[in-house]
Amino acid sequence: MSLPQRTAVDTLLRHAPIDFSGDVAEQRVVLDRVLTAQPRPADVVVTPLTLGDVPALAVEIDGQAPSGTVLYFHGGVFALGSAHASVGLTAELARRAGLRVVTVDYRLAPEHPYPAAPDDALSAYRALLELEGGPGSLAIAGESAGGNLAAVTLVNIRDAGLPLPSAGLLLSPWADLGVTGESVKSKAAVDPALTADALRVRARDYLRTTDPESPAASPIHADLRGLPPLLIQAGTHEILLDDAVRLAARAAADDVSVTLDVTAEVPHVFQAFAAMLDEGAAALDRAAAFLRDRLREPAAPAAAPQNP
Amino acid sequence: MSLPQRTAVDTLLRHAPIDFSGDVAEQRVVLDRVLTAQPRPADVVVTPLTLGDVPALAVEIDGQAPSGTVLYFHGGVFALGSAHASVGLTAELARRAGLRVVTVDYRLAPEHPYPAAPDDALSAYRALLELEGGPGSLAIAGESAGGNLAAVTLVNIRDAGLPLPSAGLLLSPWADLGVTGESVKSKAAVDPALTADALRVRARDYLRTTDPESPAASPIHADLRGLPPLLIQAGTHEILLDDAVRLAARAAADDVSVTLDVTAEVPHVFQAFAAMLDEGAAALDRAAAFLRDRLREPAAPAAAPQNP
Repeated sequence: MSLPQRTAVDTLLRHAPIDFSGDVAEQRVVLDRVLTAQPRPADVVVTPLTLGDVPALAVEIDGQAPSGTVLYFHGGVFALGSAHASVGLTAELARRAGLRVVTVDYRLAPEHPYPAAPDDALSAYRALLELEGGPGSLAIAGESAGGNLAAVTLVNIRDAGLPLPSAGLLLSPWADLGVTGESVKSKAAVDPALTADALRVRARDYLRTTDPESPAASPIHADLRGLPPLLIQAGTHEILLDDAVRLAARAAADDVSVTLDVTAEVPHVFQAFAAMLDEGAAALDRAAAFLRDRLREPAAPAAAPQNP
Repeated sequence: MSLPQRTAVDTLLRHAPIDFSGDVAEQRVVLDRVLTAQPRPADVVVTPLTLGDVPALAVEIDGQAPSGTVLYFHGGVFALGSAHASVGLTAELARRAGLRVVTVDYRLAPEHPYPAAPDDALSAYRALLELEGGPGSLAIAGESAGGNLAAVTLVNIRDAGLPLPSAGLLLSPWADLGVTGESVKSKAAVDPALTADALRVRARDYLRTTDPESPAASPIHADLRGLPPLLIQAGTHEILLDDAVRLAARAAADDVSVTLDVTAEVPHVFQAFAAMLDEGAAALDRAAAFLRDRLREPAAPAAAPQNP
């Protein structure tokens, strides 16, 4: 696809004012401003709701009759980002998939360290399950730190004995809070957005005394048996490439149907640039097709804890 | 999908008379008989041709106007199998993709050890390139040992400075002739078809004095930069699962667009059972869609050796 487009996105990210390791209050404002800079299309309908005690936004496209719901967790290294700032990307996903996306304002670090975020994620899923009356038309998705939460939440749903959703979609998941992937070094020069130092700072904020190798925090170490089919997307210009690769390898080893979908020479969460990057639009189309296909299939049976 | 179907395929394979480490003359007959047991649909048209000095079969569907050609390498641990015996699977691929498949009778070990097979594969590609007048409507594919040849041939095409095809499709590729993957042990009990011992016997027949860790023989060790987009499919019930995973990881590290597509609880080259296994039919549909999409895109530019 387009080299000029890729170059433009790379330049934009290298000059963006975001400092993922910077002062949290400041960077929250900066990231939200960057992510909401584009005007929202007129047909995007956003409705606040509360799932359990967790605030969220339902994102729908006016005139579409959604055939299911995607529970979505935004990115932002567990410390930044918001449901509001995720509307741009989630609306594109909703539009392409013909689904409603419910994007969750889980609690952020450092004020609310682990396990506040996964606790909120599981509460939100429980509430959504009741609202929808079953898991058949549900999927779970997330980007970056939200991809971590999506994977962790699938495991937590299984271990709680709750019915699992029909699919999991993970965009550039941060699946190893130990930041140990080979790509952390090998892709450092080509990654325009993330640095290992920033990830390590935010992992400490989030985990405090929890071991980064803990399967409950880093799903590359988790037992993934019984999870629904997963689609994991990543770019080759990101230091978290190996998080995606290792999570896919773990899922495959654990007998999970999994697709690892890697696009050459694009950065972390390149789908957010779908409006200016053909590769981003194409990846969102594949993600939407995956969700649509899975949500058409019969509901997954309730999982038995640890022996699904 | 269907557990009874998966169980039937598993049982069939566990009782099949194939012994991959057995006497070559005998096992060639057995494997060909097993693979050609089903009658060929009446609309499958098979035409012998010679590519360079290499015999091959063109497989087409009567009444279809193919929009491109897939150069295909059959499986059989480098010692068994034939173009003829691959017609069942390749015809299904041709039908679903709307493409012509040319399946190659590369020379087999132990009579013709490495590099006879990759030499034949490259010769066949050169000849096809001339016949077609360009690489834009070409793809390369293969299954098992043929998946090894497909990957090795893509690297050899690049290193020869020839124009690369538009896509590579690898079904359960045997990408590590050292047989060192973790899945060689972890999946041994659930793999109904392959054993590590058989693979090691055939790797020795094929390689003789060539190092199994050589990148020219085992593409998990190769530099894959500049290769066209790859789709790698595998099942979780095969000891070669980690060959697929590691090849995808290598491609991603080398900036190649790659999709690793793993189906739960199905065996080695489960696509061959598409007629009785929903997962096989679905995987072939995804493979066909991948080839169709890639062959619609503009031709890849000629690759410069080692610096594409």
